[in-house]
Amino acid sequence: MIKVGVIGGAGYTAGELLRILLHHPKAELKSVVSRSHSGEFLYKAHPDLNGDIDLKFDAELNQDVDVVFLCMGHGNSRGIVESGVIPESAKIVDLSTDFRHKESSNGFVYGLPELNREDIKEADKIANPGCFATCIQLTLLPLADAGLINQDVHVTAITGSTGAGQNPTATTHFSWRSHNASIYKPLTHRHLKEIKESLTQLQDDFSNQVHFIPMRGAFTRGILAVSYLPTDKSLEEVQDLFEAYYADHPFVHLSDEPLDVKQIVGTNKGLLHLQKENGQILITGVIDNLVKGASGQAVQNMNLIFGLDETEGLTLKSTAF
Amino acid sequence: MIKVGVIGGAGYTAGELLRILLHHPKAELKSVVSRSHSGEFLYKAHPDLNGDIDLKFDAELNQDVDVVFLCMGHGNSRGIVESGVIPESAKIVDLSTDFRHKESSNGFVYGLPELNREDIKEADKIANPGCFATCIQLTLLPLADAGLINQDVHVTAITGSTGAGQNPTATTHFSWRSHNASIYKPLTHRHLKEIKESLTQLQDDFSNQVHFIPMRGAFTRGILAVSYLPTDKSLEEVQDLFEAYYADHPFVHLSDEPLDVKQIVGTNKGLLHLQKENGQILITGVIDNLVKGASGQAVQNMNLIFGLDETEGLTLKSTAF
Amino acid sequence: MIKVGVIGGAGYTAGELLRILLHHPKAELKSVVSRSHSGEFLYKAHPDLNGDIDLKFDAELNQDVDVVFLCMGHGNSRGIVESGVIPESAKIVDLSTDFRHKESSNGFVYGLPELNREDIKEADKIANPGCFATCIQLTLLPLADAGLINQDVHVTAITGSTGAGQNPTATTHFSWRSHNASIYKPLTHRHLKEIKESLTQLQDDFSNQVHFIPMRGAFTRGILAVSYLPTDKSLEEVQDLFEAYYADHPFVHLSDEPLDVKQIVGTNKGLLHLQKENGQILITGVIDNLVKGASGQAVQNMNLIFGLDETEGLTLKSTAF
Amino acid sequence: MIKVGVIGGAGYTAGELLRILLHHPKAELKSVVSRSHSGEFLYKAHPDLNGDIDLKFDAELNQDVDVVFLCMGHGNSRGIVESGVIPESAKIVDLSTDFRHKESSNGFVYGLPELNREDIKEADKIANPGCFATCIQLTLLPLADAGLINQDVHVTAITGSTGAGQNPTATTHFSWRSHNASIYKPLTHRHLKEIKESLTQLQDDFSNQVHFIPMRGAFTRGILAVSYLPTDKSLEEVQDLFEAYYADHPFVHLSDEPLDVKQIVGTNKGLLHLQKENGQILITGVIDNLVKGASGQAVQNMNLIFGLDETEGLTLKSTAF
Repeated sequence: MIKVGVIGGAGYTAGELLRILLHHPKAELKSVVSRSHSGEFLYKAHPDLNGDIDLKFDAELNQDVDVVFLCMGHGNSRGIVESGVIPESAKIVDLSTDFRHKESSNGFVYGLPELNREDIKEADKIANPGCFATCIQLTLLPLADAGLINQDVHVTAITGSTGAGQNPTATTHFSWRSHNASIYKPLTHRHLKEIKESLTQLQDDFSNQVHFIPMRGAFTRGILAVSYLPTDKSLEEVQDLFEAYYADHPFVHLSDEPLDVKQIVGTNKGLLHLQKENGQILITGVIDNLVKGASGQAVQNMNLIFGLDETEGLTLKSTAF
Repeated sequence: MIKVGVIGGAGYTAGELLRILLHHPKAELKSVVSRSHSGEFLYKAHPDLNGDIDLKFDAELNQDVDVVFLCMGHGNSRGIVESGVIPESAKIVDLSTDFRHKESSNGFVYGLPELNREDIKEADKIANPGCFATCIQLTLLPLADAGLINQDVHVTAITGSTGAGQNPTATTHFSWRSHNASIYKPLTHRHLKEIKESLTQLQDDFSNQVHFIPMRGAFTRGILAVSYLPTDKSLEEVQDLFEAYYADHPFVHLSDEPLDVKQIVGTNKGLLHLQKENGQILITGVIDNLVKGASGQAVQNMNLIFGLDETEGLTLKSTAF
Repeated sequence: MIKVGVIGGAGYTAGELLRILLHHPKAELKSVVSRSHSGEFLYKAHPDLNGDIDLKFDAELNQDVDVVFLCMGHGNSRGIVESGVIPESAKIVDLSTDFRHKESSNGFVYGLPELNREDIKEADKIANPGCFATCIQLTLLPLADAGLINQDVHVTAITGSTGAGQNPTATTHFSWRSHNASIYKPLTHRHLKEIKESLTQLQDDFSNQVHFIPMRGAFTRGILAVSYLPTDKSLEEVQDLFEAYYADHPFVHLSDEPLDVKQIVGTNKGLLHLQKENGQILITGVIDNLVKGASGQAVQNMNLIFGLDETEGLTLKSTAF
Repeated sequence: MIKVGVIGGAGYTAGELLRILLHHPKAELKSVVSRSHSGEFLYKAHPDLNGDIDLKFDAELNQDVDVVFLCMGHGNSRGIVESGVIPESAKIVDLSTDFRHKESSNGFVYGLPELNREDIKEADKIANPGCFATCIQLTLLPLADAGLINQDVHVTAITGSTGAGQNPTATTHFSWRSHNASIYKPLTHRHLKEIKESLTQLQDDFSNQVHFIPMRGAFTRGILAVSYLPTDKSLEEVQDLFEAYYADHPFVHLSDEPLDVKQIVGTNKGLLHLQKENGQILITGVIDNLVKGASGQAVQNMNLIFGLDETEGLTLKSTAF
């Protein structure tokens, strides 16, 4: 059994990680650290775990762990990593943005298995990708891999409220968020940097813009992203590229029908749908922001690092409704 | 024109009051006080007012007002009233719980027009009823008036999130409140006291229990309440009682179809539906918690105090969806 | 009083029209035709009208009307107009797509007051614009008017479920639509034709593409549209253009804060917000699809035709939550 | 491996059953019958299954099955059972109401494991309980078992929209159901009969009324039920009864905190919370209507029949948000 530690155990991504790891056949929760909840049962912070586990939050990380997941807010992981509280022998999967970019990665491998699976298998430290970044990259990687992104890409994506974390704020207030829609950080969202680095990794002459409009949706879980750009290829040619690219990636599937967010909520899947209209290739992708966009992908990375089947513990029942 | 002041102008009930008064043909917003927003345009706190009015929040109440609405949280109104910041000549409509109960009313009249219309017309100071209390009383007043509440009453009611105010908390977080349901303060909700006082006012031998289960609904506006108790009367007899009781009350209507919350959202209406099953008379009522349950009723009281038509400024378009 | 007839009175846009006209100080509902509901009270089809009006649906149009609103589905209005059931003397406002395009307008004026107000005042027959088309045009008209649309425009817009009408279908099923998001007719939505005709009307050298991704949102009312295109102008210059263009249009306002759908639900307003990022001017617009996007705009057109103040009966309380 | 057949495979409960069985370690989907979808892939009816399984719907039941789940609408199972299309050797789990009542059970055992586990283990044919009935019984069984239901019980319960099935209707329309609440069949819901039969089974002098107000909630999955009745016992005594009763039932847990629906969505758990107020014992229960209230419980019954661990394949990740 892989002995697992979690730091920052009271937040949304940690909660989802615990839900997944609880039923993972080859992992064992050893130490879940939360200073604010230290000494309390896990289900005090994550009430859906009531009846599932009797573990309590630790104040300090138990050192008898094989892997540590960092689930604190952005900007806090680097300090933890440097502080020495994590045993040298433990692998690290960081869910924050701190080590995602090449110039400041400090040896962390960017943990998108559909891009970097072989490197992940050899890695000790993983920078788990952002949720929007994951979904958008899934819609674009095969095109970059084929060297086909030679014009600007336009992306619209909508996300559920859990992406904004559990801290109650004006924009996560039910009375405001429900039956609403709004955009934020249009054309400047920080996930653009991750996305461009990955596209450049696959297509080294990539030099175009990615124009991205992020939208807040009136739902809790899931991301739908739509990317389009002009192409001379036929729809069939592009579909073939996508099928070939994802052939041996177990969580990504092509759909011949238009997609909706609900299809993947609760699962680690990414579904893609391709259309061609007016000379533009248009790729829709859907993922669960908390699973494939965060904690599920983190477990997928753990599986790869430890030589397990990539899908171990991740064949999850979808919510569907 | 009636010159209106509002104290506590940045909250939900104040916002709804402003929305109504903006279009009231015989009222004029003179001074909207909010210490936290002093000097800002009203639409900074109530962004839907953008384009509708250029008024700014005051730090202190302008004394040239005919009526003042108190929209602060419970427990704050009594201090304001005693502080002398409200001109002696001004009428007061308090939306808090501070003066609702007979033993501590300090001359405030309980402002439920369907119970106390004549007293309201003569009043200088109004204690505006609670939202649950308004809806539940509408389902029961005609029975009490006829002396028919001689056994325990059971009440279930569900409310929208705006009833909990605009402060972001764990139970108003979208990720939690959406697609959820929960109860709170079962059998002990403080509105029970208002309700029992009114029933006793109409039926002086009233001595039974009112068992009330308040529920939080996954919606923003509206209350649905269901009250039932045993009766020997036929459905028709009870319907006749209700029709007679509400005949000259312009906002309360009987429906011959089952009700839903959406029918009255955005309006000052109360709709009622009666059924008889297994010897029980069952009365469903729906109101908008922010309108008939708060700010609309406050304006209805203002209209009565100033001798206007009770419906002035309150013929509002329903939202319907 | 303007005597009003409505044909197709049981649908969503008709319901909203009735809600508005009920309280319009200078209009009187004379005849609401619905074959399916003939002889029933209006509130049987529109239960929120319970208590507001006692009118029943007609089987045939009463001929004593000054204006007739056509609220049937797309493709049905032309037949009605040609059938002679509408008195020759009556003005017509058609809410369908049947007469919106110049080549088949049959004398109908495209009823977007912010584009064609003077023509509308002289018109007998109005083709009321589409909901997406209205919102998107509001974000672009000042740019076209200034001749500034010289590159492709990219538009993302999300709409509430009432835009899909009241017929229950798989994609309007609550279990599917709630907590979901999806796109439809990407790059090919039929409102593009209206939009391009209007842009060409203002900027006769307009020849670029408008790329439009329509999204279904998990809410009932409202549209948010985001349009962007490259510009050399500064943000301030573009804001000046917008302010000048809409200066005497009472329902359109510029906001200096980012927008959300909720701000305008229930009203006939259009709010706009401008940003400039990475050389792109980005305009967000919000309207209520049933009001400014349909029935409110239809009444605005009626007001203009009959020489009333454009805002008569349209100063509506917003829902806000 | 247990070879599984499903009849009525395109509906909501069948979809949930497939989601569960897909990952069940000891069951294998052999034949999923749907006349309307015969020949199509399962994911055409259940799009969340895209990528998970390549099985197609059958027109007729494959006879090589060990157990058959009947997922058709109420009233259709009896005909199927009598028609002979199910092999004699196969066990049957019927999810409809057809065989739930003692006088017409035809040898079917009422499949509530928390009531009848030993009988279920010996059964060939199971009548799977109703969703409301399951949740309400969980709140009352220990009291009946202790002979403590000697006065009327009052129950309020709210359910998600999936309980109404996938057929689009006026009351499942998103534009109506969202942000709404309504009651239906108050005091007369047909699940009352199941509930009373079970209470009588445990407490043979049970002769009181159960007053039940069913409510439609603005959410898709889950039921919250609140039951209360007068009691002389202390809260601690009743908690002890509940703890003892459910001690060896793996899916039912007591919570010391108030409950919400979200805690159990996606799981087969039932959570219970007890309070005592004003002489009344008040029990809140939550389940997922599609899992513990339908298909999860059906699999739990299958596990018991085939001598598997009761939780096999049912340790499901909760949705939580």
